Amino acid sequence: MKNFKLIIEYDGTDFHGWQVQADGRTVQGAIEKALLRMTRQHVRIAGSGRTDAGVHALGQVANFRCETGLTADAFFSGLNSLLPDDIVIKSCEAVDISFHSRFDAVRKTYHYHILNRRLPVAVDRQYKWHIRKTLDLAAMRQALAHIHGTHDFKAFENTGSPRSDTIRTISDATIISDTDGQNLTIRITANGFLRYMVRNIVGTLVDVGLSKSSPEEFAAIKDGKDRSAAGATAPPHGLFLIGVDYGDNS
Amino acid sequence: MKNFKLIIEYDGTDFHGWQVQADGRTVQGAIEKALLRMTRQHVRIAGSGRTDAGVHALGQVANFRCETGLTADAFFSGLNSLLPDDIVIKSCEAVDISFHSRFDAVRKTYHYHILNRRLPVAVDRQYKWHIRKTLDLAAMRQALAHIHGTHDFKAFENTGSPRSDTIRTISDATIISDTDGQNLTIRITANGFLRYMVRNIVGTLVDVGLSKSSPEEFAAIKDGKDRSAAGATAPPHGLFLIGVDYGDNS
Repeated sequence: MKNFKLIIEYDGTDFHGWQVQADGRTVQGAIEKALLRMTRQHVRIAGSGRTDAGVHALGQVANFRCETGLTADAFFSGLNSLLPDDIVIKSCEAVDISFHSRFDAVRKTYHYHILNRRLPVAVDRQYKWHIRKTLDLAAMRQALAHIHGTHDFKAFENTGSPRSDTIRTISDATIISDTDGQNLTIRITANGFLRYMVRNIVGTLVDVGLSKSSPEEFAAIKDGKDRSAAGATAPPHGLFLIGVDYGDNS
Repeated sequence: MKNFKLIIEYDGTDFHGWQVQADGRTVQGAIEKALLRMTRQHVRIAGSGRTDAGVHALGQVANFRCETGLTADAFFSGLNSLLPDDIVIKSCEAVDISFHSRFDAVRKTYHYHILNRRLPVAVDRQYKWHIRKTLDLAAMRQALAHIHGTHDFKAFENTGSPRSDTIRTISDATIISDTDGQNLTIRITANGFLRYMVRNIVGTLVDVGLSKSSPEEFAAIKDGKDRSAAGATAPPHGLFLIGVDYGDNS
């Protein structure tokens, strides 16, 4: 039995998310279909986490185990020639049989892109959340400082999928802005994420940027652990899974 | 009679180019349809030039004349609310009745985007020409220096659309590269362009980058005025019309 680690880029626009579904085109489904063609086996791949419909990835990680004579290089080339244009395998390597992309993940980084200008956007609109009113970046940065460190992030979890453990550690939460302030990237690195956590943080943060709430209210929403107090979920198309870190193991 | 100048951004991916056709979705057609709804008149708009199917624009310019009580602001807001997501009106202003977006254009600037890496591309693939083999940027820059200034560009014209005057003046032709050399932008400014001129220059330039020809051969192709000697036409999806300059008039 061999175990292979994949790093995957995808444009989420035309996918119903990562995870295989009965209906709908998914990233996992497309890769498993290509693996079936290559190996004549129903190989399951395990992703580091699901991404929702419309969410993109520059560095999703997955692994799959199978009995095969094929090398990592053969999977790399074969998958890239079989996969549709909106999925790219960036690397494939043989790893220890014990490696698991989800359980072994130490940290993940997401970027959320916002275009802040009065005009709507045509080019790149599938990769950025367009916000028309001018955002108060200083207030957003103050608010974001409150989520650094270890906290219970229950207020930012999707209501439909409660978990028993909602405590996570955010090691980086930064807003990167270009010189004219129109293009914002909110970068968040944590040891794990609850469902919709980044999009709920961004939605609540944008309320601060629009002066609908203050940085202190943002902190109180987080501390209150009440999802209904948080802002709307930001749309999926601004979100990119940038990378998954496995410490020294991989 | 009033005359209005529009600056237009569009994502060319799902358009059959700028110009109205019997079949197929076009940018001009979409804007004229919106103008019909606003004015109840069949208003024709004149673009600064056609862009071909799949070509994008951040700063296409057009103008239209009509008898109307509507203001420039009303057209700006009305068009943006009526137009599909992949067209944005960036500005609308009332201009002198004599202004014509094509005849009065003094200079135009195009950008052509290349992604030069071994891996294919999923995110942004609709905006960049992906070239797998490493390009020799120094040779490409040497070649590009030969097209600065005033020349007969017949060798870079589309064969299907000969013009009597194929002399144009290129005031800027530069390759901008990011630090790792993966993202290239070829920027060309000229007082006018022949059909497919930028894409034929880029295709011929990429042959130099791939060492299929030398910078001196590139110069000889230009001087030879023979389209069949030039390289293949670069694909449309890497090309952006960035802006049109009208000197002091507008």
